[in-house]
Amino acid sequence: MIKIAVMGFGTVGSGVVEVLAGNAEHIARNAGSGIEVKYILDTRDFPDSPYQHMLTHDFSDIENDAEVQVVVEAMGGVGAAYEFTRRCLAAGKSVVTSNKELVATRGQELLSIAQSKNVNYLFEASVGGGIPIIRPITQCLAANEITQIYGILNGTTNYILTQMIRNGSSFEDALRSAQSKGYAELNPAADIEGHDACRKICILSDLCFGKNVDPACVSTEGITGIHSEDVVLAGKGGYVIKLLGRALRREDGRIHAYVAPHLLSESSLLAGVDGVMNGIVVNGNALGEAMFYGAGAGKFPTASAVVADVIDAAKHLNARKPLGWDEAEEDYVAPTEELVSRWYIRAQATEAELKALYGDVTVLEGAAEGECAVITAPISGKLQQEKAEKLTVFAAMRIMD
Amino acid sequence: MIKIAVMGFGTVGSGVVEVLAGNAEHIARNAGSGIEVKYILDTRDFPDSPYQHMLTHDFSDIENDAEVQVVVEAMGGVGAAYEFTRRCLAAGKSVVTSNKELVATRGQELLSIAQSKNVNYLFEASVGGGIPIIRPITQCLAANEITQIYGILNGTTNYILTQMIRNGSSFEDALRSAQSKGYAELNPAADIEGHDACRKICILSDLCFGKNVDPACVSTEGITGIHSEDVVLAGKGGYVIKLLGRALRREDGRIHAYVAPHLLSESSLLAGVDGVMNGIVVNGNALGEAMFYGAGAGKFPTASAVVADVIDAAKHLNARKPLGWDEAEEDYVAPTEELVSRWYIRAQATEAELKALYGDVTVLEGAAEGECAVITAPISGKLQQEKAEKLTVFAAMRIMD
Repeated sequence: MIKIAVMGFGTVGSGVVEVLAGNAEHIARNAGSGIEVKYILDTRDFPDSPYQHMLTHDFSDIENDAEVQVVVEAMGGVGAAYEFTRRCLAAGKSVVTSNKELVATRGQELLSIAQSKNVNYLFEASVGGGIPIIRPITQCLAANEITQIYGILNGTTNYILTQMIRNGSSFEDALRSAQSKGYAELNPAADIEGHDACRKICILSDLCFGKNVDPACVSTEGITGIHSEDVVLAGKGGYVIKLLGRALRREDGRIHAYVAPHLLSESSLLAGVDGVMNGIVVNGNALGEAMFYGAGAGKFPTASAVVADVIDAAKHLNARKPLGWDEAEEDYVAPTEELVSRWYIRAQATEAELKALYGDVTVLEGAAEGECAVITAPISGKLQQEKAEKLTVFAAMRIMD
Repeated sequence: MIKIAVMGFGTVGSGVVEVLAGNAEHIARNAGSGIEVKYILDTRDFPDSPYQHMLTHDFSDIENDAEVQVVVEAMGGVGAAYEFTRRCLAAGKSVVTSNKELVATRGQELLSIAQSKNVNYLFEASVGGGIPIIRPITQCLAANEITQIYGILNGTTNYILTQMIRNGSSFEDALRSAQSKGYAELNPAADIEGHDACRKICILSDLCFGKNVDPACVSTEGITGIHSEDVVLAGKGGYVIKLLGRALRREDGRIHAYVAPHLLSESSLLAGVDGVMNGIVVNGNALGEAMFYGAGAGKFPTASAVVADVIDAAKHLNARKPLGWDEAEEDYVAPTEELVSRWYIRAQATEAELKALYGDVTVLEGAAEGECAVITAPISGKLQQEKAEKLTVFAAMRIMD
C-alpha cells in the first residue's frame, strides 16, 4: 500500500480523493499496489466530509512522515504551494500537481530539486486538464523534432467565444453566461486576458523545445477586444475566432511564443473545438500533425490526470522519470512582431485604401458603412503595425494557416 | 550506445532507420544514450541503399548477438514475424512492432513471454500509426474506468468515404483514386472489408477492458455496401458516413466489439476527420471524452511511433513496463445484435409503411421514387433485423450517438 498526501481540498484536491476512492480497485491494478490517502492538508475544516479524519492543518505532519511517498499539490498559486512543493521534494517525496502557474514560473527549479533527490515532479494536469498531453509530448513524440505546438488552452475563453460565434452573443453577455454556469470566476482576468493560456503555452514550449520560457517574455493578448462584428465578418469569410497559445521554432534556434486571438478556417479540426473543451495541435518532423482533444478543466477530468501521475509516481518510486528543460539565453523568445502571418484587418477605410496600403487583399463582405474588412497576404507583425498606424484600425488578428 | 536490429526493410522498416539517422541527436538526448542500428534483416538486397552494409539475410545473426538489446519487427504478417518475435523475446531482447495482425492475434502470448524474460513488447504503432494512443490509454487514463472507445481506424476507407462525401464519387471511383495515390493496395480487401480496423479495435479493447478479444469473434462489416444515395441522404439529414471500430463495456462485464459503417452527426469532431487521417475517441468515467487525431499510416508517422517505443525500450532495459491483458471467457464478446442504437434505414417502402413498422421515425428528404429513408428510435440490432425482413431494405446503418 502506497501512502500519499493531498495538499489543498478544493475542487481538484477533493476530485483526486474521490477518484482514488471510486476507482480504487482499477487504480490498484494499474499501479501494482493500492494507493491510500493518509493526509489532506487544508486551512479549513470539512466536518461534513467523509474525509475529515484525514485532515490536517499542519504541513509538517506530511513533511516529517517518511511513510508518505507521493504528495499531490492542489493548492494553486506560487506562495505556500511553492514552499511546500520544494520541501516535499527536498524530503525525498515525489510531487504531482495541476498548478500551471507554479510549473510555468518555478518548474525548472523544482524539477532540478526532484532530480537531485531522485524523485519525480509530475504535472500532466497543468495543461489541458484531463487531456493526455505532457506524456504524449515527452514520450510518444520522443523521436520527433517538434516544429510547432498551438491550441485552445483555456476553456473559459473558448466558451465565451463559442457563445459569440454560435449564438451571436456580445462579449459581455457571453462572459455573464460563463460566470452563471461556473465556467468563469467573478474576477475573470486570468482567463479573459490570456494569462492562464500564457502559463500553459510556456509549459508546452519548455517541454517541446527544451528551454525555459518565462511567462513575462510571452506576448499575451486576451479576448476582451473582440467585437461581435469581427465574429460575424470572420464567419462570412469561412473563419472562426479562437484564442490560441502558440509556440514555434525558428530556423535560428530561437522560438516564438505568444497568446492571441486568431482566425481559423472553419474546415480545420481545431475550429470545431467548442464550449469549454480544449484542443492542442502538435507538429513533428516525422509524425506530421496530431491533435489532442478533451475537457481542459473541471473537477474529475483534472483529477483523472492528477491520479494518472500519482500512479506513475507510485510505479517509479526509485526510478526518476527523465523530465526537464534547460535555462534559456536572454533573447531566446524572439519578438512576436517578427512573425509572418496573414492578417484579418477591419478599419475605417475603403477597399481601395486598404488595397493601396496592404497590396493584394481578400475583401470580406458585410462590413459596416464606412468600414472595410480584409485578409492580407503574409506580412510580419511589425509591418502590419506600421501600415495600421496610417488608418483607424478596429481589429487586427492573425490567421492561423 | 544501444544496439538495435530492424527486421523488414519495407516502408516502415526503412522509415525507422531514416528517422533514427535524421533525428539522431534529438533521440539520443531523449533516450539518454545513442541508438545504433547494427543489423537490418530482409530477404532482399538493397545495393543502392546507404544501409546495405547493415543488411543480413540470417535471423540468427540477430538472435545470437547479445549486444542487440532491442529489435524492431516491421515484417508484417503472422508467420516469420511471429516466430522471430517469439525467439527475440525468449533471447531476452525487447521487441517493438507496428504489426497489428500479430498483436491482435498473438499479443497476449508474446506479452507473457516478454514478462517471463523481464523485457518489453511494445506496439504503439500498431494502432493509429503515428497517433499516440496506446501509451495514453495505458498510462494517462490509468485512473479511469474506460467505458467506451471508438474511432476511424483505417485511413484507406476513410479516404474513400471522404471522396464519396465531399466529391460525390461512387465507391468504385473513390477506390480507384485511392489506389492511384498509393493509399489502397491492388488487393484492397483487408482495408475495405474492415479486417484492418477489426485488428485495431481488438488491440484497443484488450488494453481498455483488460481481456483478450479474438478478431474472429468481432462482427466486421466494411464499406463495400455503401451507396452514393446513402451518402447523399445522410448528408441532407446532417450526418456523414464513417467506418468505425467500436468497443464498449456492458453492465454485465461483457463487451461489445465490432466494425461497421455508422452515421455520425456532422457537428461531431470525428465527422471532421477526413482523408487518410484517423481519429480515436475514448470515454473514461473521470475524464469524460477525449479524442486523438493524426496520420493513421504512412512511412514517417508510423516510424515516429516505432522509434518512440524503441526509445522507451532503451530506457527500460532492466525494468519491464507493465502491459498486458488476461484471457477472456468464451462469451466475453456479446452478440452485436443485442446492442441498441438509432438506425438509418433506406427501404423500398412508403413513409407510412416505415412508420407502421418502426414507430416514431425521422424521415430524411430526397429518397428516390418508391423509396424512403428514415432514422429510427433506439432499437437492438436483432429487432432491427426482424423488422427489416418484412421489407426490401437497401441500407441499414447504426447512428453513433
